[in-house]
Amino acid sequence: MIVEEKLSQAVGLLKEFHVDLWMTFVRESSSNPDPMLDLILGTGCTWPSAFVITSKGRKVALVGSLDVQNIKDHAGYEVKGYRDSIRQDLLDLLRKEDPEKIAVNFSRNDVMADGLSHGMYMILTDYLKETPYSGRLVSSEEIVAALRGRKTAAELERIKDAICETLEIFDKVTAFVRPGRTEKEVAGFIKDRLAEAGLEAAWDEVHCPAVFTGPESAGAHAGPTDRKIEPGHLMNIDFGVRKNDYVADLQRTWYFSRPGERRVPDEVMKGFLTIRDSIKEAAKVLRPGVEGWKVDDVARSFIVEAGFKDYDHGLGHQVGRKAHDGSGLLCPKWERYGQLPFLKVEQGQVYTLEPRLTVAGHGIATIEEIVVVTEDGCEFLSTPQEELIVIN
Amino acid sequence: MIVEEKLSQAVGLLKEFHVDLWMTFVRESSSNPDPMLDLILGTGCTWPSAFVITSKGRKVALVGSLDVQNIKDHAGYEVKGYRDSIRQDLLDLLRKEDPEKIAVNFSRNDVMADGLSHGMYMILTDYLKETPYSGRLVSSEEIVAALRGRKTAAELERIKDAICETLEIFDKVTAFVRPGRTEKEVAGFIKDRLAEAGLEAAWDEVHCPAVFTGPESAGAHAGPTDRKIEPGHLMNIDFGVRKNDYVADLQRTWYFSRPGERRVPDEVMKGFLTIRDSIKEAAKVLRPGVEGWKVDDVARSFIVEAGFKDYDHGLGHQVGRKAHDGSGLLCPKWERYGQLPFLKVEQGQVYTLEPRLTVAGHGIATIEEIVVVTEDGCEFLSTPQEELIVIN
Repeated sequence: MIVEEKLSQAVGLLKEFHVDLWMTFVRESSSNPDPMLDLILGTGCTWPSAFVITSKGRKVALVGSLDVQNIKDHAGYEVKGYRDSIRQDLLDLLRKEDPEKIAVNFSRNDVMADGLSHGMYMILTDYLKETPYSGRLVSSEEIVAALRGRKTAAELERIKDAICETLEIFDKVTAFVRPGRTEKEVAGFIKDRLAEAGLEAAWDEVHCPAVFTGPESAGAHAGPTDRKIEPGHLMNIDFGVRKNDYVADLQRTWYFSRPGERRVPDEVMKGFLTIRDSIKEAAKVLRPGVEGWKVDDVARSFIVEAGFKDYDHGLGHQVGRKAHDGSGLLCPKWERYGQLPFLKVEQGQVYTLEPRLTVAGHGIATIEEIVVVTEDGCEFLSTPQEELIVIN
Repeated sequence: MIVEEKLSQAVGLLKEFHVDLWMTFVRESSSNPDPMLDLILGTGCTWPSAFVITSKGRKVALVGSLDVQNIKDHAGYEVKGYRDSIRQDLLDLLRKEDPEKIAVNFSRNDVMADGLSHGMYMILTDYLKETPYSGRLVSSEEIVAALRGRKTAAELERIKDAICETLEIFDKVTAFVRPGRTEKEVAGFIKDRLAEAGLEAAWDEVHCPAVFTGPESAGAHAGPTDRKIEPGHLMNIDFGVRKNDYVADLQRTWYFSRPGERRVPDEVMKGFLTIRDSIKEAAKVLRPGVEGWKVDDVARSFIVEAGFKDYDHGLGHQVGRKAHDGSGLLCPKWERYGQLPFLKVEQGQVYTLEPRLTVAGHGIATIEEIVVVTEDGCEFLSTPQEELIVIN
């Protein structure tokens, strides 16, 4: 069971980072979840709850009395229920464990380590204000980054499985698309295949799949429109499935020939090959220890040197339970990314590689692959798109 | 469109509460959502984003450039996209509007007004530290409570519709249940009816529906088990559907006669009638202006005076887009509820009424109804369970 595997891993990480106790403090997780609950609990809670893991290996859940059974059913915590307030149980636990460092989930940089709401932070610091523990709170971002990032063998298998399902659907798309079909029709075809396979979309169905055809298309993160595929269009699709709680996130590019066109126009082929080869170049430098921005920079520079404008986003993000799985990013040093571009890549992380460029008059060329970081490099988990898919 | 209706309502609430500007500041909402986005946006965002509403009626969204189209597709904001950082656009907007009071989403009391993560709070206060605005941040809890609580006519229609679908499924359950069936089988039957109707569960499917039969059952918020219905059992189900983004949350109680039993045992009937009548008594005092704890106290005292133990939760919560829709609660003055029991009930709020008691040797009797607060009282939106459903 993955939750138990990750709980054991968490104990090891607390030792590695010299943190005595890590606390996830959350309430009404169905409305305001802490993003770590999926990995360390696998269900939700209603009243203020503390999920505490210690470097000595204790796992304690302090929860509202009516949540006790559900928590016990889901994960191996010592569970204690309260009726009136969590305050006393929480203070008793801290006094017993007497931690020097208490990691809680706040982070300027990593949304996955930032599940503690500001109101809950205020409540927690109120509880602690007469104790020695108020000054011992630290960000859990290192722990969270490592726990989400370093995939176990079971997690890798699930991601591979989601990739496989996604690529199968892309193959079916190739047989379906032709000039005259709209973006919405293509998206609808993909959704039907998802339903057929009993799978869910990897992210918000409004733009999963995202389908963009031609030079006037809306660009990333928008939903499909009634725009029709026309001869001469580049079409790209951004899509992934969720299977057994793990996701894929992949992109492929198609070209629709004009009547009588004997070969793909040079600028289209150049755009496609530039994207394809920028991924290969970036993969060559992706290895443990490299800072994420350097990997981004390799692909970005390759595209700019080929004469195209660079892309308005990062080269890649981590993938796991979420399509955007948080922490270390392969991205430029833009302020919106905080400190993430400076984090060092680690073995066991799974990244997308997804540069993008525009071919004037035709549309957008993108490819998104998924790789796992190995001991001394990286390995493609997706079968890379080597050739532009041309529909005659 | 409900989002536009709620955005207009929000402008009126800013005037009512003398707040110049309300800002929802959020990133990666698919992993760490602000619970207000469903009402004021209807979609998500990726990079740090600010959704700003002013008392003068401006609605401005500052978002990452790749999110611009999707935001425009969903709600009537002036949308401005950035590439590197939101900081400058945010400061420019504040300087232009020059608000005396800036409401942001943090709250000790109300999870629905507590969507600002502590990390995002730190980022925001960093941005503001050289400006006059850092001292002008206030909690949005009054605005959020009124915006979620005061339902529009369109919202009420949707809730009624969800109630209607839920009660229809309960009727089908009555024809299905009999001794020998397990809790899981009953839950499976309900899930099949949901799928048939193309509807979703109102909350986490692990315990929606929740099915409890007999004296040994697990209690609220646990999932169904392999426990079999036996003659002499009280069975209760907690369940609701989500339809058009709005939910119902209802409970009903069944009794399974013992062989040869000519009438329901006195203690069972007394338990059922006590629950039924405690709801009627509480409804009599539920009206605008009353503090929530007083309504809870009426039902709780009624049950205790009848000789039963009181319930370990509040009498009722608000219902809307979420089964637990936040803010004002009909609950006792326990610390876990913060200031919520002291909030005054308002016209247009929709509450559950859901007391519970245990009949020794038989199981749990619960009924959960849904009412809307009117000008001078309240009105049942669900057709109340008047009779114990007896299965012979």
